[in-house]
Amino acid sequence: MKALLLRDIRLPDGTGCDVLVEDGRFAAFGRNLTAPSGAANEDGAGGLLLPGLIEGHTHLDKSLWDMPWYRNECGPLLGDRIANERRQRGLLGLDPARQARAVADRFLALGTTRIRSFADVDTEIGLKHVHALLELREAQAGVQEIQVVAFPQSGLLVRPGTLELLTAAMADGADIVGGLDPSGIDRDPKGHLDAVFALSGKTGKPLDIHLHEPGELGAFALELTVERTLALGMQKRVVISHAFCLGDVAPARQSGLLALLAEAGIALATTAPPSRNVPPVAACRAAGVTIFGGNDGIRDTWTPYGAPDMLQRAMLIGLKNDFRRDDQIDVALDCVTGAAALGCGFSGHGLAVGMLAEAVLVDAQSVAEAVVAQPSRRLVISGGRVVARDNALV
Amino acid sequence: MKALLLRDIRLPDGTGCDVLVEDGRFAAFGRNLTAPSGAANEDGAGGLLLPGLIEGHTHLDKSLWDMPWYRNECGPLLGDRIANERRQRGLLGLDPARQARAVADRFLALGTTRIRSFADVDTEIGLKHVHALLELREAQAGVQEIQVVAFPQSGLLVRPGTLELLTAAMADGADIVGGLDPSGIDRDPKGHLDAVFALSGKTGKPLDIHLHEPGELGAFALELTVERTLALGMQKRVVISHAFCLGDVAPARQSGLLALLAEAGIALATTAPPSRNVPPVAACRAAGVTIFGGNDGIRDTWTPYGAPDMLQRAMLIGLKNDFRRDDQIDVALDCVTGAAALGCGFSGHGLAVGMLAEAVLVDAQSVAEAVVAQPSRRLVISGGRVVARDNALV
Ligand SMILES: [Zn+2]
Ligand SMILES: [Zn+2]
Repeated sequence: MKALLLRDIRLPDGTGCDVLVEDGRFAAFGRNLTAPSGAANEDGAGGLLLPGLIEGHTHLDKSLWDMPWYRNECGPLLGDRIANERRQRGLLGLDPARQARAVADRFLALGTTRIRSFADVDTEIGLKHVHALLELREAQAGVQEIQVVAFPQSGLLVRPGTLELLTAAMADGADIVGGLDPSGIDRDPKGHLDAVFALSGKTGKPLDIHLHEPGELGAFALELTVERTLALGMQKRVVISHAFCLGDVAPARQSGLLALLAEAGIALATTAPPSRNVPPVAACRAAGVTIFGGNDGIRDTWTPYGAPDMLQRAMLIGLKNDFRRDDQIDVALDCVTGAAALGCGFSGHGLAVGMLAEAVLVDAQSVAEAVVAQPSRRLVISGGRVVARDNALV
Repeated sequence: MKALLLRDIRLPDGTGCDVLVEDGRFAAFGRNLTAPSGAANEDGAGGLLLPGLIEGHTHLDKSLWDMPWYRNECGPLLGDRIANERRQRGLLGLDPARQARAVADRFLALGTTRIRSFADVDTEIGLKHVHALLELREAQAGVQEIQVVAFPQSGLLVRPGTLELLTAAMADGADIVGGLDPSGIDRDPKGHLDAVFALSGKTGKPLDIHLHEPGELGAFALELTVERTLALGMQKRVVISHAFCLGDVAPARQSGLLALLAEAGIALATTAPPSRNVPPVAACRAAGVTIFGGNDGIRDTWTPYGAPDMLQRAMLIGLKNDFRRDDQIDVALDCVTGAAALGCGFSGHGLAVGMLAEAVLVDAQSVAEAVVAQPSRRLVISGGRVVARDNALV
C-alpha cells in the first residue's frame, strides 16, 4: 500500500503539523516530515484535521435517500409508524441493499468511516435486510467499517417466529443482537430481555436495545437490563439506545440510574432529538457512562430529517445539551468520534500513531466552528488513502 | 424597472407555472406567460419557488460572522453572558455596522428578504448600534427590509440613563421599542412594562419584549403584558419573544395563557431551542396566536450556533415540534415566511399577484425537502430582480 504524506494541517488541539500514513495506519505526526519515496503527497493548506466520524445508531436499510420524495402522512404513535413502514416498504419498492449503499457512500463522502446500523428482521421480510447489510459490510470493508445489528423492529415475542429469525441472522453473521421496548412493544419486559440476553450469550455477540419507553416504565427496563448485564458478566457489551427515560425522571433518580449504568458498563446512544427529554451528555460522562451519537433514521418513513453528516448530528447534540463553550462543543464532537468508538467497540480509531488512518480535513478555525458550520469536507482519508474530495467520493 | 419572466417553476402547492414580475411586484402566475419586450428571462428548470424568507428575531449588531473564531469560555447564567458580551465587545473590536452588514448580506444571498433585528442600547455604547442598524436599513432598502428594535440588553431601569437612550433611539428612527425580562433583569415587572408601554404609546411604535423568564414568573410577566396591551388598545402591535414559560407550565395553564395572548393579539417569536421548553407551534396556532421563527444570536459571544439561513431555522422548528408529516413541515416553513410577515407586520409579502416580488428558487421536490435538506439557493429574487445566484450575491 502506497504511503501518504499530508502536509500542513492543524490537529483538533490546534497543533500544526504534517501527517505520515503507512500501511493504512498513522505512522507519524510532526513538523517537516519527509515522505518515503513513492508516497502520495497532499497539501492540507492549514486545514483542520478531524478523526474519522462515527455514526453510532442508524437504519441504513430504511432510508429513502436519493429516492423520489416520500410524502409523510403518518399518524403520531410508535405503532402508527411501525405499521406505516411495513405498508410503505411494499408501496415504495424500497430496495434495502441499494438504499443502504447510497447512504453509506454519502456518509463516507462526508467523512464517516464507521457505522453501526440496525437491519430490520420480521416475519414478513425475513433476513432480506440483514443480508443486504452484511453484503454492504463486505463491500465497504477497508474504507468503512459497518456493524450490523439484527433488529426486531416489529416486535420480538409478539410476532412469533421473529426470535428464530433473529437467531438465524446471528448465525449468518450479524454483529450485534438488537432489542426493542420490552414493555412498550413486546408487552413482556422479563420475557423480552431474557430472550435477547440469552441470544447474546449463546452467540457471544453484544447487545443494543432501543428503549423509547418514557419515565418509570423505561427506568424499569433499564434496571432489568443492568441486572442481566451484571449477572451475565456482559459489562462493556451492552448499549441502550435513546433511553429517553433518563431525561424524564427527577435528578436524584437520574443520578441513581446513571450509577447503575456505569457499574454495568452499559453505554448509551443518543440522537439528541429536540422534541424529547434525553440523557444529558455532561451528566452521563461525569457519572462514567459512555454516551455517543447517531442519527437514527435518515429520511425514511419515520422521519424526513437526519443527514449522513455526523457534524450536523454533533451540532444537534451540542444544541440539545446547551453546549456553548468551545470545550463543551469538543465533547459534542467526541460523541461522534472517540466516545462512539468506545461505546460501539470500534478499534484502532483516533488521530494517533498506530491507529487506522481515517481522518477528515475541513476548512475551520476550530472544532467548534466545524461543528456549528459543518463546512465542506476538503479531504476524507480512509484505509490509508484519499477516498473523497470536496464532499464527493473519488 | 425592467420586467422579469421566470419560466418553469413549481409553487409550494406543487403547481407548475411561469412567474411574471413587473415594477417590482408579482404581475402574473400562469402557464406559458409571454414576457413584455425587454424583460429579463430566467429559466427555473422546474425548481421549487418559495416566498422570500423572513428572519423574525435576530441581533445583527452582535454577530462575529466572518471574524476570527471567538473561543467561548463564558459561564452559564444570563448575567454571565450579558457581562461577557459587554467585556468582549471591546476586546474583540466588534464593529456593529460591519458585522450587521456581513450577516444581512449573507441572509440575502440565502433568500432572506426581511429581517427584524434588535440593536443594543446601553449606557456604555449609547446609540452606536442603533445608528449602525438604521444605516444598514437604508442601505438595504429595496432588496431587504430591516426592522430595527431598540433593545436594552443590559437592563432598562437597573441602568439609569438607558430609558432616555431608548427614547432617543426611537426619535432617531428605530422602528420598535424593545423590552427585556422585567423581573429577571430589571427586578421590577410593573415598572419595566409601564416604561416600555409608555414609550411605545408616546412614539406610536410597536413593542417586542424578550421574555426568558421561566414558569410562573414568566407567565406573570406575560399576564402583565396582556393587561397593558388590552388597556392601551395595542392589539397586533406587541410581540413577546421566546416566552419559554409557555412551554414550562402545565397544559391547562398553557391553554389559558394562549387564550389571553389571542385576545390581546400578541404574537410570539420562537427560536425553538432544542435545550429548553418552548411555546408549541401547533397549540399556538390552534389558539389563534401568531408564532414565527428567528435565530436570535448568530455566532456571537452568546452562542456559536445560528446561521443566516432561515431554512435551517425552519428545520430546527420542525425538529423541536416533532413535525414529521409534510403538512406539518409546511407550518415550519410558514414560521419563517407568512406567519413571520404577519407577526412582524411586514407588508406585501407572499407569492401572489400584487405582492412585492421576493422569492427563492431551490432544487427540491417539496417544501419538506427544502426544509430538511436546505439546498443551495439557485436564485434569489428581491426588489423585482435577481439579487443572488447559487448562494452568492450578484
Ligand atoms: Zn433506531
Ligand atoms: Zn434575542
